[in-house]
Amino acid sequence: MSSEKSAINMLIEGILAGEKGALARGISIVENNRQEKEELVSLLYGKLGKAHRIGITGPPGVGKSTLTLQLAKACRAQNKSIGIVAVDPTSPFTGGALLGDRIRMYELFNDPEVFIRSMATRGSIGGLAAAAAEAGDLLDASGKSVIFFETVGTGQSELDVAEACDTVLLMLAPESGDSVQTLKAGFMEIADLIVINKADRDGADKTEIEIKTTLSLREPQEWEIPVIKTIATQNEGTDEVVRHIEKHYTYLKHNHTLEKRRREKLVRRVKSIVRSLLHDAFWTEEKLSNLKKIGESESVSNRSPYTIARDLVRKFLQE
Amino acid sequence: MSSEKSAINMLIEGILAGEKGALARGISIVENNRQEKEELVSLLYGKLGKAHRIGITGPPGVGKSTLTLQLAKACRAQNKSIGIVAVDPTSPFTGGALLGDRIRMYELFNDPEVFIRSMATRGSIGGLAAAAAEAGDLLDASGKSVIFFETVGTGQSELDVAEACDTVLLMLAPESGDSVQTLKAGFMEIADLIVINKADRDGADKTEIEIKTTLSLREPQEWEIPVIKTIATQNEGTDEVVRHIEKHYTYLKHNHTLEKRRREKLVRRVKSIVRSLLHDAFWTEEKLSNLKKIGESESVSNRSPYTIARDLVRKFLQE
Repeated sequence: MSSEKSAINMLIEGILAGEKGALARGISIVENNRQEKEELVSLLYGKLGKAHRIGITGPPGVGKSTLTLQLAKACRAQNKSIGIVAVDPTSPFTGGALLGDRIRMYELFNDPEVFIRSMATRGSIGGLAAAAAEAGDLLDASGKSVIFFETVGTGQSELDVAEACDTVLLMLAPESGDSVQTLKAGFMEIADLIVINKADRDGADKTEIEIKTTLSLREPQEWEIPVIKTIATQNEGTDEVVRHIEKHYTYLKHNHTLEKRRREKLVRRVKSIVRSLLHDAFWTEEKLSNLKKIGESESVSNRSPYTIARDLVRKFLQE
Repeated sequence: MSSEKSAINMLIEGILAGEKGALARGISIVENNRQEKEELVSLLYGKLGKAHRIGITGPPGVGKSTLTLQLAKACRAQNKSIGIVAVDPTSPFTGGALLGDRIRMYELFNDPEVFIRSMATRGSIGGLAAAAAEAGDLLDASGKSVIFFETVGTGQSELDVAEACDTVLLMLAPESGDSVQTLKAGFMEIADLIVINKADRDGADKTEIEIKTTLSLREPQEWEIPVIKTIATQNEGTDEVVRHIEKHYTYLKHNHTLEKRRREKLVRRVKSIVRSLLHDAFWTEEKLSNLKKIGESESVSNRSPYTIARDLVRKFLQE
């Protein structure tokens, strides 16, 4: 028991010192939802809040990895230490094809001030977003000043990962289809910056006009979303993206919006942990085995799952 | 109150009679998670179990809508009544582009024995899969003998929708990238049939060999997954797909596997409803408002979300 304790303490010391090996072990604990996770995250919790968390999201093939690499290099040129968490919840269909893009990131792999981690766990998308956020906590505690969360995928998981960030950069490309549709589908609410990558391709100007028109239809906002054109493969436009990212961070801090967003994040995480604790308290071995028996005998009965669930919960709350 | 009651009863009568208007209203109740949902689903629960539920899944652009249309026509030729639920959880990036494919389905729209519904709700992927399954319940209760669930998307939501089906058809195409990767990423466990669509394109034979090799590496199974080549746009191979779907259904019934799968589905649904009931019982107005206050004052404190959540749950369970 005491050797366990000291193992965690040693791990925490290593993470606080920014050691790559300790960070890798810590993130594995978080990713695999291991028993030590809660203690690890809780003990590091007082050390958080220094890193700027940047989410980079957009459809597959739009150039997220390439731009992330360029942004990371630009931050290194400013002598900032950085973390990169590449989240890929869509592995079933796209995992293989994207691996090649990732490999280019390893240009930065030998830099002691850069930590790169790829996360892809199927089985629970919500769980993956939570694990990515906690990996961000570990990187934050380790002293990284900028953390990039690159999410390859679509839909809800993108939004979940983005919710854990301070600044969200939405990347589109001239060929990525109906950009306006993407914006309307919930991404306008989470995007702080919009980047049109592959700006040398046909249709880039049309895409820009469409996006700006859609944005102009909104109510006036305190933060107006800038639209920036880049050619990430040629490192064109990266400096402008960096400038806007920094400008957004200044806006967040000046405006108490950073505080507000982080409080909202705390509330969401408490809710998610409560859900999991209630699940564990409710589903005792006995209840699980009873449920299985109900499943076995109930096949011809008319009790709906709602009726069964209500009965179980009523009994639980009366106990 | 009594007029409410009779409204539900009238709706149920309409659904049991297979009226399209009643089905549409019922599915809207389920999709929008309206108050009447629980009563509606519970009252219809005794009428279920007659329909064969078929999931059609695969990467975007592989031809799912086209094959679904062909399969639906083939079932109509056998005089079976059918339901089609098209689930699109990935709308943010692909929703727009796929709408055109869907429109072709409306060839069947005027057939009184065909009911088609498209569902795409962002916000909760788990919720969408549950709503699709309940839409299937309504179609089942209405007397449809075959229900197709077409899922456009990737990852977890595919798997969730597939779990609610009796027979799962995985579609791949020569160009859909690394098929073996897809199989390894969890789809081999859920696929009952594999269709290689666009079989006239380069690489179809190679894809077939790769898939068959991967399948041959498994332990021998009671049901060996057939691999069928189709050209859905030319209606080639549809009959063979139908034959294998029917063969699988016979296997399921003969083997008590159908019963077993449906019992597992009941268990999963009870668990999911319990989660939602516990959430509602826990998060009273008072607790939500307290949590918000914690969020507001806790910004400089060191209490981790785990500590906060554990305190709240401990108090709740002692009450």
